Amino acid sequence: MTLPDRDSGSVLLQEIVEQPAAIARVADNSPAYAEIAAEMRRRGVRVTRLVAHGSSDNAASFGVYAFGLLPGWTAVRDSISLTVYYGAEIDVTDSCVIGLSQSGETPDVVEYVELARRRGAYTVAITNDRSSSLANAADAVLELGAGPEQAIAATKTYTTQIAALALLAAHAAGAGDEYADGIRATAAAAAEAIPDLQARARELAVPFAFIGRMFVIGRGIEFATTREISLKLLETCRVAAEPLTSTDMIHGPVAALDTFFPVWAIASEEQSLAAVREAALRARAAGAALIASGTSAESIPDADAYLRVPEPPFPLLAPLVTVIPGQLFAWALAQAKGLDPDRPVGLSKVTLAP
Amino acid sequence: MTLPDRDSGSVLLQEIVEQPAAIARVADNSPAYAEIAAEMRRRGVRVTRLVAHGSSDNAASFGVYAFGLLPGWTAVRDSISLTVYYGAEIDVTDSCVIGLSQSGETPDVVEYVELARRRGAYTVAITNDRSSSLANAADAVLELGAGPEQAIAATKTYTTQIAALALLAAHAAGAGDEYADGIRATAAAAAEAIPDLQARARELAVPFAFIGRMFVIGRGIEFATTREISLKLLETCRVAAEPLTSTDMIHGPVAALDTFFPVWAIASEEQSLAAVREAALRARAAGAALIASGTSAESIPDADAYLRVPEPPFPLLAPLVTVIPGQLFAWALAQAKGLDPDRPVGLSKVTLAP
Repeated sequence: MTLPDRDSGSVLLQEIVEQPAAIARVADNSPAYAEIAAEMRRRGVRVTRLVAHGSSDNAASFGVYAFGLLPGWTAVRDSISLTVYYGAEIDVTDSCVIGLSQSGETPDVVEYVELARRRGAYTVAITNDRSSSLANAADAVLELGAGPEQAIAATKTYTTQIAALALLAAHAAGAGDEYADGIRATAAAAAEAIPDLQARARELAVPFAFIGRMFVIGRGIEFATTREISLKLLETCRVAAEPLTSTDMIHGPVAALDTFFPVWAIASEEQSLAAVREAALRARAAGAALIASGTSAESIPDADAYLRVPEPPFPLLAPLVTVIPGQLFAWALAQAKGLDPDRPVGLSKVTLAP
Repeated sequence: MTLPDRDSGSVLLQEIVEQPAAIARVADNSPAYAEIAAEMRRRGVRVTRLVAHGSSDNAASFGVYAFGLLPGWTAVRDSISLTVYYGAEIDVTDSCVIGLSQSGETPDVVEYVELARRRGAYTVAITNDRSSSLANAADAVLELGAGPEQAIAATKTYTTQIAALALLAAHAAGAGDEYADGIRATAAAAAEAIPDLQARARELAVPFAFIGRMFVIGRGIEFATTREISLKLLETCRVAAEPLTSTDMIHGPVAALDTFFPVWAIASEEQSLAAVREAALRARAAGAALIASGTSAESIPDADAYLRVPEPPFPLLAPLVTVIPGQLFAWALAQAKGLDPDRPVGLSKVTLAP
């Protein structure tokens, strides 16, 4: 049994499908990234501080790994509240600050960037709106070029942020051209995979329609994906989905699992795969239903469902595709639950509140 | 209606009650903290890297604020996997690495500290076991002195880690003596508050016995408390409790709330209080039951329950007490659900797995 076809009307689905083209446009903007990476090197940046909320903050999780693995730099998801609410005056003269915001209007991200720039940091805005407050506040702007995002739940602005951070880090490491090509190749592979993933997500949504709780596990490069899939399930499907590193799940939360508390494991072909596999086995032993996705989904034994995605030319680029099964599942599960995937209850597109 | 009295047998309860004495012992060990802070200053540490899992990682969240607010230093919860799994060789010569582990035997924390020390970082172990692998791996050791922790769920090792990080940061800022006194005063106030909090947690647990999902919200200094209360509920009560900053809840997860999906708000008298209050109002509007705790619990209007704690002499020390209502609630809720609070399903004290 699958659901009736309500595909044509969903802007969420449309934007999920648009992602490969949007990601490829980031690669086409490679010279702008090269220029900013050169400026970061010229200034001898010691710490890259990523500031964002929501999906953009999930993308920032990826940035920590992109900068750590490519140029070997320290990048952190910085505390916004320390600077904006508590007025801490931390020395940022050796820092690059990257503010990420789809709209470019998230107030405390804008305020953080303004303060950091005044204090001598090199500030970069990554946003979908070149004329936004964030773009105006920063020294330099990287426009995502994702096109208008109309669904409340972010999709293409998230994956273009991932591409943007990967490309910037690659240029910082002198590998910008290879990664621009890699992003294009990954986009093409994603476009090819989407129709089948969409069909499988629809099938899978039906038996999960009654689920109210879920853990999404992954680690390292894929922790961003883990967080973003959880957020899609929370806001679109009203599932209490919690992102956990595989290690943290074993450390305690595994005690909460049972048959009706499933686990989604993101298993990609990279160095943290063994840890994820181990945690998935523990979840299985606790009786939890198990969904395995990622570029190496089949390395999770005995899962109830597999949503494998194609392997990109560089393992670091996997999060460009591994999030897609989660987005499609959230779209399908919302429908299976009788919710409108385009308009989650009580949310608006831009959060202006504190 | 309250629960039958099974207090006497619970080691979890006993360890919760032991916390004020354990915290005060950290203050008594102040000279050891002064020495390590002096060494950090002498070396001109630029970045403090906190590495931990589980409850210790929750305490690390607090460390970011303690170092940011007291000496004004950059402290980050560093990625363990970047260094240990991916083999990234990030320059740590300007860094102090603080490894936190109750047992001192968490394998990848030990490995991270070993690698960082070899690469020129100044490494400090904060552990409950002076003869552990972590203590042996580091340049310097701060022993928590919490005494043996027998319950699976960490309590006194968490709060002593909070005290340890506050005291180290205070010494780095030249305010060690005032903070040592402040920690002692906070411990005394906590000891006085516990009996009433315990009674109220027991009352409150009964109507919440059927709850399977919860958000715990807080921000800034209190985000550590937010994470730690969630973890206690997950591992002890099998509740899918998710920690969220107040801002992140508004950004999306608020859509999941309903009458049977309550929110626990940690409202303390400090700069992020307005943001927490705003998020609590949004949760209320979504129909969620609301528990308000913290030093300024009553600033959350119209909550279903209040668990106020005494205000410490310095706002930064609030997390020493604000976690206690959550620990007591987890202990009481486990019993209300028919679970054994001392022995969560499928967990062991030391996680040796990846």
